[in-house]
Amino acid sequence: MPAATSTAILLAHGPLRERVSAELTGSVYRNGGVIVAHDQYVDHERGHYFTRLEWRLAGSRTARTSLEGALAETLHPLGLSFALYFSDDLPKIALFVSNLSHCLYDILGRWRSREWRIDVPVIVSNKTALADVARRFDVEFRHFPITPESKAEQERKQIALLRERGVELIVLARYMQVLGPEITAAFPGAKPYHAAYRRGVKIIGATSHYVTEDLDAGPIIEQDVIRVGHATPVAEMIRVGRDLEKVVLARAIWAHLQRKVIVDEARTVVFA
Amino acid sequence: MPAATSTAILLAHGPLRERVSAELTGSVYRNGGVIVAHDQYVDHERGHYFTRLEWRLAGSRTARTSLEGALAETLHPLGLSFALYFSDDLPKIALFVSNLSHCLYDILGRWRSREWRIDVPVIVSNKTALADVARRFDVEFRHFPITPESKAEQERKQIALLRERGVELIVLARYMQVLGPEITAAFPGAKPYHAAYRRGVKIIGATSHYVTEDLDAGPIIEQDVIRVGHATPVAEMIRVGRDLEKVVLARAIWAHLQRKVIVDEARTVVFA
Amino acid sequence: MPAATSTAILLAHGPLRERVSAELTGSVYRNGGVIVAHDQYVDHERGHYFTRLEWRLAGSRTARTSLEGALAETLHPLGLSFALYFSDDLPKIALFVSNLSHCLYDILGRWRSREWRIDVPVIVSNKTALADVARRFDVEFRHFPITPESKAEQERKQIALLRERGVELIVLARYMQVLGPEITAAFPGAKPYHAAYRRGVKIIGATSHYVTEDLDAGPIIEQDVIRVGHATPVAEMIRVGRDLEKVVLARAIWAHLQRKVIVDEARTVVFA
Amino acid sequence: MPAATSTAILLAHGPLRERVSAELTGSVYRNGGVIVAHDQYVDHERGHYFTRLEWRLAGSRTARTSLEGALAETLHPLGLSFALYFSDDLPKIALFVSNLSHCLYDILGRWRSREWRIDVPVIVSNKTALADVARRFDVEFRHFPITPESKAEQERKQIALLRERGVELIVLARYMQVLGPEITAAFPGAKPYHAAYRRGVKIIGATSHYVTEDLDAGPIIEQDVIRVGHATPVAEMIRVGRDLEKVVLARAIWAHLQRKVIVDEARTVVFA
Repeated sequence: MPAATSTAILLAHGPLRERVSAELTGSVYRNGGVIVAHDQYVDHERGHYFTRLEWRLAGSRTARTSLEGALAETLHPLGLSFALYFSDDLPKIALFVSNLSHCLYDILGRWRSREWRIDVPVIVSNKTALADVARRFDVEFRHFPITPESKAEQERKQIALLRERGVELIVLARYMQVLGPEITAAFPGAKPYHAAYRRGVKIIGATSHYVTEDLDAGPIIEQDVIRVGHATPVAEMIRVGRDLEKVVLARAIWAHLQRKVIVDEARTVVFA
Repeated sequence: MPAATSTAILLAHGPLRERVSAELTGSVYRNGGVIVAHDQYVDHERGHYFTRLEWRLAGSRTARTSLEGALAETLHPLGLSFALYFSDDLPKIALFVSNLSHCLYDILGRWRSREWRIDVPVIVSNKTALADVARRFDVEFRHFPITPESKAEQERKQIALLRERGVELIVLARYMQVLGPEITAAFPGAKPYHAAYRRGVKIIGATSHYVTEDLDAGPIIEQDVIRVGHATPVAEMIRVGRDLEKVVLARAIWAHLQRKVIVDEARTVVFA
Repeated sequence: MPAATSTAILLAHGPLRERVSAELTGSVYRNGGVIVAHDQYVDHERGHYFTRLEWRLAGSRTARTSLEGALAETLHPLGLSFALYFSDDLPKIALFVSNLSHCLYDILGRWRSREWRIDVPVIVSNKTALADVARRFDVEFRHFPITPESKAEQERKQIALLRERGVELIVLARYMQVLGPEITAAFPGAKPYHAAYRRGVKIIGATSHYVTEDLDAGPIIEQDVIRVGHATPVAEMIRVGRDLEKVVLARAIWAHLQRKVIVDEARTVVFA
Repeated sequence: MPAATSTAILLAHGPLRERVSAELTGSVYRNGGVIVAHDQYVDHERGHYFTRLEWRLAGSRTARTSLEGALAETLHPLGLSFALYFSDDLPKIALFVSNLSHCLYDILGRWRSREWRIDVPVIVSNKTALADVARRFDVEFRHFPITPESKAEQERKQIALLRERGVELIVLARYMQVLGPEITAAFPGAKPYHAAYRRGVKIIGATSHYVTEDLDAGPIIEQDVIRVGHATPVAEMIRVGRDLEKVVLARAIWAHLQRKVIVDEARTVVFA
């Protein structure tokens, strides 16, 4: 039985039609759902509609297992693609890491302090440096050393492991290895701008994005910057840049976990 | 005849009801309007609905002069308050100033460069210092010296002038005079935080808000901050603070002119 | 024997005199030190001089243990107060916490990942909620329940413990208890602005400061803000505010650890 | 006779030597000058010293006209390059513009409101669109239409005009024309990042830099950014970007006018 505060979250998008918003909210109301959030964005130039609709499950007259089918009946005739989530499902996240621990500690702390309602069944690494951190947080640590020869085989094993553990989302938390095409339907890395220090750039930034085969060119979820000065030594820029990566990656994951991100070709729609 | 790009903008809010969004968009569609923007915000805790709906007038089957009445027929039964604007109406703005010119120059520049589609029929001041700026920009300058004895009488004259000029909005651009209750349905001033410099505050800020009788406590439209350091002299803080006021006031006026602000008791809803 | 990169750091301030900077750098040069950083700030209005001077110990002709005495001979005749630190000394930090873990996880992660070169010999709490976090990071956890009756006695015991552990710095990481006068020469807490949500404030902030008897009024070390909107629910403001507290507290501690902060009455001088 | 508050400002840099700071301040003291600001930055890796020293002229025992020579005697033996300025000299600035007026209005407003103590003897343009703005602010407007054939000849005429008017600084305020090598010792333009909108960039920025022959690659003086979202239309990005350019250019000019910028090869040192 769902908790009193459990909600269903629908992310949907498709061609803008006159009654699309009314049909959506109407179908929730008719099923006894109480809407708690409804965000919409219309790209009027392309005539494309994006929405995020969240409603309380308590009182719903449709069984949770039937909900996806019931929604498909309403949404598919309207030409909408959609995904349905339940707030009380625990998203399973695998963390891919190499040698740098700042993002890893941040994510594990948010999980163990229950700021984020997630499960982290496994940490995957091409190095062994962070095995201790995994142990400290009682998470399974799996080492997949990768050579040019072993890469394809190791990735097949990684995929098998992720499937077995029921992982929904892979977070590349400073994982230093290009992923092969098998695994590219995956998730954000954080990387500093190619900051042209040589011209005395006054601002450095970090970006978190979904990963596509072209490693640094996936749809951007979150970005932020911080000011530096001529007196900031390179070591301090790196330190400050890591703090920024950590924050930007955490915000991107949070937006994803809140089911607030719709990927729209090469861009994202991120509801507030 | 309206330009091909002329739009109507509706700001409305009231109790959340099931079909309110559909009724609104439906009534626009039935009249031949093409929606170009539709923002909604629901305060689900209070069950209160806020919307901004913008549609092209070209093709509309309702005469512009009948539109307000037609909307009232749809919206009043739903319990919605609303205001209707047309993008090709030039909002008439009066600027109230005293001795400081930074906000005044900024606003006049945005007007004369056609960044903002407004009309500034008159500048009102309790001082004469900025008469030259008015002359430079070919705007009428009206001096209302104010003493405790003359205050009520001068404000009556100001109100008469503003009515005669068809002023919709009063911008207090560093006007240093508390307004009496006759004139309080007015508009934003910009003021720096009561920055407690003595503790070495690292951040200073500016706020633009609607004006109520309690001068510094109206609903906030826009705020921003800037970092300062221990080595920032007071004179430089003031200079930087003025740049901030200018920017914050301009953003607040822009949001108001775009009809993106709904005042909700002591708060504002500012659509993105 | 110090590492090749070990440095001495001098923080000094006092009345501005003509040759004070030259005397300082000269005395380092004469001792064979190689200066790696020299920041100076002069409050010319008050005629007060502040400096941070850092030099390599390798090659120094004065034994480390004699350095403080040697500096006193140069600096006291100039009327300068000073403090001397060595970069290879590990500052011992005690963390005071209650129920909230976000700052605690962040600090422990920075320590265990060696981003910060510190030692955390003990976590002190008036609650038991975070004992598990201490265990996870292999730190001693000491519970001091506090009632109005026991407060004075418990603080005496806390002070004795801190002395015994050689603690240099107490970090109040969301410790929810007013400290008595015995312990006030202590260190920063992080607290959100008294954000007047009711007016629709668009910006929330956090401040880290040294603690004085008047709890929220010590010299500010670091502040930062983040934008929120009308649609940001209170729960999200709290979450975002905690992220901000964490970052602001970490930056304040870092500045302190780098020996970049001089307290100047109610203000701080924070070198870049 | 200089005003009581008139100051001399020295910008100098060169190899770091032991007594360089003491020699500089000593030579000011010996001449009866009262130092009001003294900023120093040392690039310890390269052993290079940068300084900005400002002192009151009142009480100085060296005639203003002899000061440069007197300083050369002290500084040249130390291997320092330097430039000397007087705060009561009015820097003469020429504004180069094309069709966009936002930066132009901002600069003229700061001048006419006496926020900046400058003189603007002439506005130069390759278009006629902004002649009216020049007239409004009582500034000479000179039109130099440029074709590939006339370019070299027109630039020679521009240089002759600038020399005749005693212009010290050229500000490219959205001047849309590549400058030839004759004129490249010139000054900052403002330009938006090559913002890759297509990936849904969440941040747009502006940069002001000195101009070298390679137009967008001179030493950066100031940069800033602003957040945008998926719902920000391109027209609004442009508007917001212009506001940013205006602010960033104004801050860069201000830093230059305060004599706070030293160009160090491809970078700048910008004192706070």
